[in-house]
Amino acid sequence: MIERVLIVGTGLIGASVGLALKANGFEGTVVGWDANAAELETALRRGAIDEALASREAVLAADADVYVLATPVLPILDWMQRLAPVLSEQQLVTDVGSTKREIAALAKKLYNREGSARFLPGHPMAGKELGGAALAEADLFRGATWLFTPCSGLLTAEGGGGASPLEAAWRAWVSRFGAQVRELDPVRHDAVCAWVSHLPQMVSTALAALLEDTFAGDPEGMAAVQAIGGRALREMTRLGASPYSMWRDVALTNTAALAAALAALEQRLAHVRENLRTPELREEFATANKFRAKRG
Amino acid sequence: MIERVLIVGTGLIGASVGLALKANGFEGTVVGWDANAAELETALRRGAIDEALASREAVLAADADVYVLATPVLPILDWMQRLAPVLSEQQLVTDVGSTKREIAALAKKLYNREGSARFLPGHPMAGKELGGAALAEADLFRGATWLFTPCSGLLTAEGGGGASPLEAAWRAWVSRFGAQVRELDPVRHDAVCAWVSHLPQMVSTALAALLEDTFAGDPEGMAAVQAIGGRALREMTRLGASPYSMWRDVALTNTAALAAALAALEQRLAHVRENLRTPELREEFATANKFRAKRG
Repeated sequence: MIERVLIVGTGLIGASVGLALKANGFEGTVVGWDANAAELETALRRGAIDEALASREAVLAADADVYVLATPVLPILDWMQRLAPVLSEQQLVTDVGSTKREIAALAKKLYNREGSARFLPGHPMAGKELGGAALAEADLFRGATWLFTPCSGLLTAEGGGGASPLEAAWRAWVSRFGAQVRELDPVRHDAVCAWVSHLPQMVSTALAALLEDTFAGDPEGMAAVQAIGGRALREMTRLGASPYSMWRDVALTNTAALAAALAALEQRLAHVRENLRTPELREEFATANKFRAKRG
Repeated sequence: MIERVLIVGTGLIGASVGLALKANGFEGTVVGWDANAAELETALRRGAIDEALASREAVLAADADVYVLATPVLPILDWMQRLAPVLSEQQLVTDVGSTKREIAALAKKLYNREGSARFLPGHPMAGKELGGAALAEADLFRGATWLFTPCSGLLTAEGGGGASPLEAAWRAWVSRFGAQVRELDPVRHDAVCAWVSHLPQMVSTALAALLEDTFAGDPEGMAAVQAIGGRALREMTRLGASPYSMWRDVALTNTAALAAALAALEQRLAHVRENLRTPELREEFATANKFRAKRG
């Protein structure tokens, strides 16, 4: 059914999709393109793609069954606009972007209409703090949640006229990757991700940046930080290694929800700070303990 | 040289010290006491201690060579005051408390004088988000940093008249546990730990508590949080499971340094929030990337 997959953006996620297809028995052809020639070459060398396209024009002319947009969000929106006019109803475009509201809105406008290609907004909740095809893995999605955020009017399994055969086929591949598929409204997606993904990222970045600025001029202090900091510090700053290139687009396309979450955490930290010597601190720990207990 | 070790507080750290002694060939007797009878029994059952003392009075009468105070900081200070009058120069008291300034100051006042027992303030940078003897491990300290914060006037290997033979013997055991021993001034210790340990703890607690309060009245939202939250959320809230009992004493004995670190992070988060759509965000990521790159 799916014979030709085109991965736009062969970094960590894109190349992992290619590797996962191969590892799970995909017998068609995987074609790839990346704005970064080195990433593209690495993806090719690692067998994540069978064929590297030479230009953006080649992407538009590639005539694949499924297009997987695996770039940051702004280039995804850009590719959606370029691809819509050249694709037909027999083709599916899907993406792995970190925010979904703007993507779903654009999909509603340009895709899933009489005569236009299908678009299925997706978001695998998998990744690493460092990107790149070199770190891609066929098993990256195993056990992870892979969200789809069909916007109203989309022809999905859940509503409308049922999923198109191509969409059903792509969903089946995602399941074969070992991911748990879930549906979520795109606005809800961005609201929840502001809390569970974007806020933790910004906190980790801010904490790492603060430590860098606090101790950079104090080599002895920085040495103590590095020596003393254990698992807690490592975990709390791990995401500080994440690249701006990806998170810029998250901040730009989910600004209000993320700003609200950040403001709420600022207030919460001030509350903790003002209650370091009062029984209120006990309440804060009890509430946090409760949250953790639910996660088992 | 060390024939009898008494562990006061047989929770995660205390019981792990007992297990580490046994696993590394200690042939003397390990005696234990805990305010919580269940913890004490678990430590005995797991072989972390050979003998369980029945009361606080029994601790004072136990006549051990080395006393390891492995409780939260306030009870450590309390035990230091109880033990000082009943011990002699031939005995060593050490601790594993999370803050060191108040402990080192009290040690200077009550110990390490003509005729009084020795005190060696210590802090193994190891632990888990959940406490208890049931989670104790002989290898808990392997690869971890174990800080000693001798205060000026102490008879350590680094200054004064050299470490007492008992102190040298205890340091040798800590090395056998697989820990990396480092010396740090107690004031410096608390200042650095405010950043690398206490701040990350409070951030994780505040984040977990905020998520709990935000989604507790919204079961569908909480379900989405649990389903969508991946490794990033798990890591950033892991310490939210930590017990108040231990952290209360950290907050009480390092209030100023911790409050300053919290205030600095609040400002930093506000800075991120105000710059979600400006190139300043790039700088923040670059600075955070720099910090992470140093940690390899």
